[in-house]
Amino acid sequence: MTSESAFIDELRAFATHPAARGLTDDAAVLAFAGRTLVLTHDAIVENVHFLPSDPPEDIGWKLAAANLSDLAAKGAKPTAALMAYSLSGDAGWDAQFAAGLGEILSKYGCPLIGGDTVRVPEGSARHFGMTAIGEAEFVPGRDGASPGDELWVSGTLGDAGLGLAIARGEIEGPEVLLQAYRRPTPQLELGQKLAPLVSAMMDVSDGLLIDAKRMAEASNVAIAIESIDVPLSKAFVSIRGDTREASLEAATAGDDYQLLFAAPPRSRRQIETVAEDLKARIHCVGLVEEGGGLVLQEGGSPLPLPEKLGWEH
Amino acid sequence: MTSESAFIDELRAFATHPAARGLTDDAAVLAFAGRTLVLTHDAIVENVHFLPSDPPEDIGWKLAAANLSDLAAKGAKPTAALMAYSLSGDAGWDAQFAAGLGEILSKYGCPLIGGDTVRVPEGSARHFGMTAIGEAEFVPGRDGASPGDELWVSGTLGDAGLGLAIARGEIEGPEVLLQAYRRPTPQLELGQKLAPLVSAMMDVSDGLLIDAKRMAEASNVAIAIESIDVPLSKAFVSIRGDTREASLEAATAGDDYQLLFAAPPRSRRQIETVAEDLKARIHCVGLVEEGGGLVLQEGGSPLPLPEKLGWEH
Repeated sequence: MTSESAFIDELRAFATHPAARGLTDDAAVLAFAGRTLVLTHDAIVENVHFLPSDPPEDIGWKLAAANLSDLAAKGAKPTAALMAYSLSGDAGWDAQFAAGLGEILSKYGCPLIGGDTVRVPEGSARHFGMTAIGEAEFVPGRDGASPGDELWVSGTLGDAGLGLAIARGEIEGPEVLLQAYRRPTPQLELGQKLAPLVSAMMDVSDGLLIDAKRMAEASNVAIAIESIDVPLSKAFVSIRGDTREASLEAATAGDDYQLLFAAPPRSRRQIETVAEDLKARIHCVGLVEEGGGLVLQEGGSPLPLPEKLGWEH
Repeated sequence: MTSESAFIDELRAFATHPAARGLTDDAAVLAFAGRTLVLTHDAIVENVHFLPSDPPEDIGWKLAAANLSDLAAKGAKPTAALMAYSLSGDAGWDAQFAAGLGEILSKYGCPLIGGDTVRVPEGSARHFGMTAIGEAEFVPGRDGASPGDELWVSGTLGDAGLGLAIARGEIEGPEVLLQAYRRPTPQLELGQKLAPLVSAMMDVSDGLLIDAKRMAEASNVAIAIESIDVPLSKAFVSIRGDTREASLEAATAGDDYQLLFAAPPRSRRQIETVAEDLKARIHCVGLVEEGGGLVLQEGGSPLPLPEKLGWEH
């Protein structure tokens, strides 16, 4: 057991309110005044979740994007956000961060209503947090996947992973990949429209394989993923090709903030219509089966799982 | 202008939703489904807001106490909380933190419903945040004080300041002062009962003088404080005496988490009855007047303001 899971177990001992969902979901779901609030908090830390060299506007964007993506995964429409900000000691840097934050919150109609600014001791990593609050009618858990469901993912995978490699100077590549890493798009409209049609939904922030495994564990089912079905962008393929290795890299890369969802085959047509209406790319990547755990396969034959299924913060 | 106030000005440019209250109040106040939510986020950082040597249970307690105190200041009853936690790398430390947090949340009926745990780079300060959400009927701002109001404070002041000096090994003193610093009591019941009776309310977390100055500025009034009216505990007096110097020390010390409120003289009897019913100590420390700014006086004659009015984080 990691120290993180041990700690979360200790919190679970008293986080017994139904809104907490056992601290196993992307967000809390609170019944209030006959309506349903979805609440999430994501923190990002320098040298853990972003690079010191990332433009501050993009870090501001990403803080909100990570939180709005959790709302998207629960089918919620943003209501408001609060921010925790550690002053960087550089007013220009802070102002650029605020600009990027304002841009994304305005784009997705999420007002900033409060928060806290703190100093941190010299030498401490920059550290930002956001609580995003939304409202939803149908709130899919990550625990509702049923045998027979199809497993879908939105967009393409691996782009942000390559964008990070570009940002680190490890490879060269097109701007679109760098943007995928620095300015991820929370799938809010898609999530809201899909929520009533799916049996389980979450965002893919740490990698398809690790997040699908989490969905399988929460739902007490097995999930089988076809490696050749991992959706890749042209930009990704232009750098890595479309080999099995490339697919596995894309399926274990983090920061894509796409939606991963399971739905019964009878919902397929409606799901495809939703995606067409929004001009959103979605892709069926696997099946939910009886049993437990994650299975990776190629043309139906099992492949060994890679040692690292994704990104563990 | 400090870099913090410059940054908050930049946020204000887009934090224009009425729930944000111009980012000038202790908490956001969000109308939702015909009811009123109060939302606050406070972060605490090692070596800024707490000492590395403070017991982890007490740090967990204090994180929640600081947030619940903001709810108290807005007359709100706690609904739920989300926590941002930086893993310390020491599972025993984390477990003790969780124990203290669970203790206070259970005492004040505030369920933990979500949050995030993150790693921080080696050498970074521990960094914790909490979003607390409550519900209120009457929500006093800090901007409602009117000329003619009396200014009140709950409890005694300066105890936590001496507790911090004890924790730092600078002085010796009784346990009760150390506890005032390490386990502050959010004045939730008092805040809820006072809310409909007051014209302005906030918590005193940074020092009576600095917080009263903030209330005066937000309300566009002058506030005059009688130095001899600063309420002191027996424990405080046993160490510092009850000189003018001691009063000024108490009036500029932080971390007391008492309530500061302004109310018209016609509310005095009801206010005193509320305090008696709750066995809470309250003390009239000054008057709200026409004009602007903070005035300190002794027996009605003006005293020079100390250079440092309180604690600026």
